[in-house]
Amino acid sequence: MTIYLDYSAATPVLPEVLKEMQPYFSEIYANPSSIHSPGKQARKAIENARSKIASIIGSEPSEIIFCSSGTESINLAIKGILRASQKKHIITSKIEHKAVLEACRYLEKYENCKVTYLDVDKYGLVSLEDIEKAITKDTCLITIHHANNEIGTIQPIKEIAEMANKYKIPLHIDGCQSGLLDLKEKLGVTLATLNSSKIYGPKGAALLFIKRGTKIHPLLHGGGQEFNLRSSTENILAIVGFAKALELIQKSREEESERLTKLRDYLIKELLKIPDSKLNGHPTQRLPNNINISFKDIDEDSLLLHLDEQQIYVSTSSACTAKSIEPSHVIKALAPQKEYLYGNLRISLGIFTTKEDVEKVAQILPSIIEKLRKHKN
Amino acid sequence: MTIYLDYSAATPVLPEVLKEMQPYFSEIYANPSSIHSPGKQARKAIENARSKIASIIGSEPSEIIFCSSGTESINLAIKGILRASQKKHIITSKIEHKAVLEACRYLEKYENCKVTYLDVDKYGLVSLEDIEKAITKDTCLITIHHANNEIGTIQPIKEIAEMANKYKIPLHIDGCQSGLLDLKEKLGVTLATLNSSKIYGPKGAALLFIKRGTKIHPLLHGGGQEFNLRSSTENILAIVGFAKALELIQKSREEESERLTKLRDYLIKELLKIPDSKLNGHPTQRLPNNINISFKDIDEDSLLLHLDEQQIYVSTSSACTAKSIEPSHVIKALAPQKEYLYGNLRISLGIFTTKEDVEKVAQILPSIIEKLRKHKN
Repeated sequence: MTIYLDYSAATPVLPEVLKEMQPYFSEIYANPSSIHSPGKQARKAIENARSKIASIIGSEPSEIIFCSSGTESINLAIKGILRASQKKHIITSKIEHKAVLEACRYLEKYENCKVTYLDVDKYGLVSLEDIEKAITKDTCLITIHHANNEIGTIQPIKEIAEMANKYKIPLHIDGCQSGLLDLKEKLGVTLATLNSSKIYGPKGAALLFIKRGTKIHPLLHGGGQEFNLRSSTENILAIVGFAKALELIQKSREEESERLTKLRDYLIKELLKIPDSKLNGHPTQRLPNNINISFKDIDEDSLLLHLDEQQIYVSTSSACTAKSIEPSHVIKALAPQKEYLYGNLRISLGIFTTKEDVEKVAQILPSIIEKLRKHKN
Repeated sequence: MTIYLDYSAATPVLPEVLKEMQPYFSEIYANPSSIHSPGKQARKAIENARSKIASIIGSEPSEIIFCSSGTESINLAIKGILRASQKKHIITSKIEHKAVLEACRYLEKYENCKVTYLDVDKYGLVSLEDIEKAITKDTCLITIHHANNEIGTIQPIKEIAEMANKYKIPLHIDGCQSGLLDLKEKLGVTLATLNSSKIYGPKGAALLFIKRGTKIHPLLHGGGQEFNLRSSTENILAIVGFAKALELIQKSREEESERLTKLRDYLIKELLKIPDSKLNGHPTQRLPNNINISFKDIDEDSLLLHLDEQQIYVSTSSACTAKSIEPSHVIKALAPQKEYLYGNLRISLGIFTTKEDVEKVAQILPSIIEKLRKHKN
């Protein structure tokens, strides 16, 4: 029996989603821009998917731009807004996804853009006061994630949106981890990224919600698809699957959140019994499926390997580069004691996670930690 | 019985391709960047696909960057090369795909780039002499399509590549219609775009071949996937399907080209018997599956509609905009007599096209044309 607990990294495609996608492999495959009947049928499938999503997030269908990935959508939002604006200052936080941070760094280096990277508090929360202080006359965009992919902390998006609106600055939120959250909140923002591959939809689809009237440049030029904002023949298959997946996860989100929160809190409680362990992220204002714990004096790769041997698949927060291990930029920003910078584990639960799964982890993990610490001393 | 003859616009996914993709929906779905066993398994699938394609086009695996679409790959090539270069002049032709033309126009408008749009001869061929004349000290890229998607004309890529190499200017070829062509030719170029959705693979995958040592900026920044040139969680499903589709089409390309060429030439011969009809594109140096014919005094949308009623699905070359019909930029560049600017039909054959299909078109089309002309007068 394998135990997959890395749902924040990738999710399987649900059978109901796959079923919805089935006709689009070799029956309805025409180019949606073709004006013959099969083309119109393909177009209809895409527009149905768009309408379905629009009704879930409470937007107009024409405010939804389908992209190929969360990263593409985030790049479109950040670069697109900057390039369409005379203003050249962006506000973001230090704990954003790399797609945000690297897009910003590129604009700083090559497109004369200034970026403010806000600190966060010990729970990973961005402060409203800090945002307000950072705003200048040259600010063209605030981009903040909805929930952090590593530590699960949920940002006060509603309040941030109110402030952004007060200053008439577009706010983009990275909602790549937002499947289980209330997406109607998105109404307050100007741009929002959602993706398919983290919510049991297929890889290859994401969307950027762009509030009507927002000035933005496309990243991809060509045939003028997606309201002239994202040229490319539409990936019908992935779009149809994405819409179905979003519908399913949003329909069951309240009960599923409740179920996962119980499992999460049980496992957190158990793991914090391990000596010298520490929860990262906010204790309550966090994703229902996210657990992030640091263990003092532990090499996280060895930890991962030992769990892998037991067919328990989790993740670390750090990014391994060729020869060194960089501590995660997210964990680093929480400014923990140095001993807690490494030895970091992200356990993300999902639709197939059972009580037995988390019990097994709670049972196995302490002995592995003990063994590793013994070995080290 | 429906007759789909729009294979240059979109192809169905072949059963063998779908079979190859099957495990990647809900069995092997982990994030290829995850370092646990399922992650490694996903990584392996992608690298196998990359190696398979590399051996087909004769490149190193690390010279292949997976993207989400032909349009993305073309945008990456053109914008990426320009942004990484001090030189700011691009040479292309007037009959490129919109992805090339619109990317160039964007760079002209916003990034201080100069673009030469070369004329073509009456067959749609780019002249080597014209390219050489257009080269300046500031030229950073030549971008020419391998075969034209509307009129099927195949460009003398080998010769263009030799010239580009002589002047040490990177040559990008748009190979979105190249499935049936000899891809080893690509060895002579610096960059080449190939895509999946026109060769019976799934939508959502394409590649940019980038010769080692070429300086290029990414379009998408983030996690550093695809050798730091295209960040995004890899779309395993589509990548695996793409590799299989390319393998299949290349394996059978000689016999399939022969088969399609016969059907093509038969249908061209039959259709040219219709009074006041004219073949567009080169008579022999053209894609085995492409037929493009203009009919004098014909409204092409009515023609399409009448064929659609007979469940025959073909395409026109023109792009319908809201209230006017613009003649195709490709047909326009061939400088035909004015009466042949409209009334244009592209018939593109494919793997499921039979002799009966083309015979039926040859039988039905003349009477539709006759009816439409009568109606007009």
